[in-house]
Amino acid sequence: MNTFGTLLSKQMPSRFVTISLMSEQAHRRRFLQLSALLTAATSCSTNNTGRDPAEDDGPGQLGKAVSAYGDRSPFEKAKRLTPDVKNPQVASSRTPLADIYGIITPNSLHFERHHSGVPSIDPAQHRLMIHGMVDRPLMLTVADIKRLPSTSRVHFVECSGNSGSEWSAKGAPDVMRAHGLASCCEWTGVSLKLLLEEAGLKREAKWLVAEGADACKMSRSVPLTKALDDAMIVYAQNGEAIRPEQGYPLRLLVPGWEGNINVKWLRRIKVTDTAYYTKDETSKYTELMPDGKSWLFTWPMDAKSFVTYPSGGQKLAGAGQYEITGLAWSGRGKITKVEVSVDGGKTWQTANLQEPVFSKAFTRFRLPWKWDGTDVTITSRATDETGYVQPSRDELVASRGKNSNYHNNATKPWKIAADGSVTNA
Amino acid sequence: MNTFGTLLSKQMPSRFVTISLMSEQAHRRRFLQLSALLTAATSCSTNNTGRDPAEDDGPGQLGKAVSAYGDRSPFEKAKRLTPDVKNPQVASSRTPLADIYGIITPNSLHFERHHSGVPSIDPAQHRLMIHGMVDRPLMLTVADIKRLPSTSRVHFVECSGNSGSEWSAKGAPDVMRAHGLASCCEWTGVSLKLLLEEAGLKREAKWLVAEGADACKMSRSVPLTKALDDAMIVYAQNGEAIRPEQGYPLRLLVPGWEGNINVKWLRRIKVTDTAYYTKDETSKYTELMPDGKSWLFTWPMDAKSFVTYPSGGQKLAGAGQYEITGLAWSGRGKITKVEVSVDGGKTWQTANLQEPVFSKAFTRFRLPWKWDGTDVTITSRATDETGYVQPSRDELVASRGKNSNYHNNATKPWKIAADGSVTNA
Repeated sequence: MNTFGTLLSKQMPSRFVTISLMSEQAHRRRFLQLSALLTAATSCSTNNTGRDPAEDDGPGQLGKAVSAYGDRSPFEKAKRLTPDVKNPQVASSRTPLADIYGIITPNSLHFERHHSGVPSIDPAQHRLMIHGMVDRPLMLTVADIKRLPSTSRVHFVECSGNSGSEWSAKGAPDVMRAHGLASCCEWTGVSLKLLLEEAGLKREAKWLVAEGADACKMSRSVPLTKALDDAMIVYAQNGEAIRPEQGYPLRLLVPGWEGNINVKWLRRIKVTDTAYYTKDETSKYTELMPDGKSWLFTWPMDAKSFVTYPSGGQKLAGAGQYEITGLAWSGRGKITKVEVSVDGGKTWQTANLQEPVFSKAFTRFRLPWKWDGTDVTITSRATDETGYVQPSRDELVASRGKNSNYHNNATKPWKIAADGSVTNA
Repeated sequence: MNTFGTLLSKQMPSRFVTISLMSEQAHRRRFLQLSALLTAATSCSTNNTGRDPAEDDGPGQLGKAVSAYGDRSPFEKAKRLTPDVKNPQVASSRTPLADIYGIITPNSLHFERHHSGVPSIDPAQHRLMIHGMVDRPLMLTVADIKRLPSTSRVHFVECSGNSGSEWSAKGAPDVMRAHGLASCCEWTGVSLKLLLEEAGLKREAKWLVAEGADACKMSRSVPLTKALDDAMIVYAQNGEAIRPEQGYPLRLLVPGWEGNINVKWLRRIKVTDTAYYTKDETSKYTELMPDGKSWLFTWPMDAKSFVTYPSGGQKLAGAGQYEITGLAWSGRGKITKVEVSVDGGKTWQTANLQEPVFSKAFTRFRLPWKWDGTDVTITSRATDETGYVQPSRDELVASRGKNSNYHNNATKPWKIAADGSVTNA
């Protein structure tokens, strides 16, 4: 921790600046309190009778009572970015990823993407049908599914349109606008493999088509190879029932694959011998290449990372010690390395990864950094367990062109000016 | 998965019972839908043109719009148990542990224990003072602390009065009433060791006294050996700022030790050469032994486990395949084994532990179980990495008597009657 040996003394000035901005009375009060506490400390260190004089100050009345279901502090303002559009039922909201901590996204801030709004579903009436090329078609209640062997895993879900702004040279001004269509939760549910085995797959079965109970019957084709690997049918996130916006009461979870295929409000799984080429895997969620042809079924989300602090829209208090932190993930497995550059990509340092690192999950990285107060450009670069390295925007555009709206995982540089303001570089 | 090979067919009857309870019209609708879907499946399995006739049924109008901060489904009713007392500011509320999933407790359902209510604190005005036997007293803002190197860890917090009901032979009727004063979150904050090193500990320093900003100035003494080991000052839980009930904006986290010492609304840490013997470590939170003497400073919470399904107040649908699941934890490290008995403790089977298993954190255990429909008594027994084995109530009472209100970690048996009803055994 030597790196930080001088941080707090450096902090002192800025703190006293803060105090000097307070009313003269408040200013005096602070110093009186401080000296009182210090006096108390001296005397109390030599006795153990307990209470300090200083303990008489501060709040003296009863606070709020216990409650049945808590809420956050009114001083906390973090919220999802909702668009000003004509049909907010057919829209997305973004997670304020620069304002969350650790690797868990609070359920209330999990990003949304709806193609016909959030249906209101009574779980007692909801059914999941599994049929098609199976020996025993199944019609299951939510209670049936909750009675099955369950599992909990931490995984991210990311819209394949996330970071779409970064296809333009301009790029988005902050983390939420650039990367906010991704979130990460502890999901609990049932292995899809178990359910398919219960239904009994016919020899010719190769795919399934998952259908939602929303108005547009969102449907996506999933190859059985993936369905039998690590797909789940989930009914809980972060300890409580999944939220309506996340598919209450049942959602298909296809770990690491583009968000749209994680069908919400899941009502039907049809086992087939072919893909269905539904609207959302043909007219949308395909990658238009420079030669005019499109890539179809580009499912996995490739390794991505970005710095959340310092990031666009934030302002540093001044030269001194900071902790650079951010998020990384890969749809192909675990993140094995995140490198950070504070000189616009000339040199790179390896950041610390918060343990444990989960496969196909947000991974928090951190790096101590002493800012000298001059203009700098910071960025991060992730490597996953397949050896894949997150590309720069130039590398991505060189290989894929600029026609695609989806699967942008380019590195994201932030420019820090001498006045501490941080902007998109 | 062979164990479950017959589960779903066994489910069929109960499902059709459900359906036969529906209106005759609904009943017919279901079968029409079912046959329609099956027909569709047959035809669609031989073409890939996409949409099924069956896809025309179901909801057909736009659902809810995207929102800035989400809420749970109105169909979800899980809530904390709040007591009907004269002063609900000086009370506790309990987490419905039989209604949560995985190992993360939703912030809104995290248990509460307040000695003078929940203060409303403006984080911009809040300060943490570190003084006493240090070289450099510190007065820190929340912003100062958030600028320091951070870490995230999953840990439980448990009131030492949890399971107090189990000292009586009667015992509590359900999981929430018996064990609901415990919860588990991903906590993010700063290592206390780092802050104490910044302040500079004097040679004679051996303890610290942590003080909260609530009306009663909750204060507890913590030996430096623990403070310098794994204690943290946390400002976030499960990805967002800690909740007011959990100490917003700052809480002392002392992993594995009784909840009361995890001082909330933390405003002051005084480094001393002795414990302070505050109200909450002398008149309360001590263990009265049979010989009339009391144990002082009984900090760690010993290994505990209990079955959450099936548990008191629940009712099984009938004989057949189930998954027994529950929670285990230890304040002394990782849970290494949970055994389940379905014959009142005569024989024990080893349950599956959900990976990853964190130290001093909720650990989810699961065991497939086929119920023959006769009266049975089920219970669980945890072992932690120190080799400690959770005692039965008889063993606990034999060693500690019945005078103590705290630190009850006895095994909890549930009786399942032939009609499927589950009660405290």
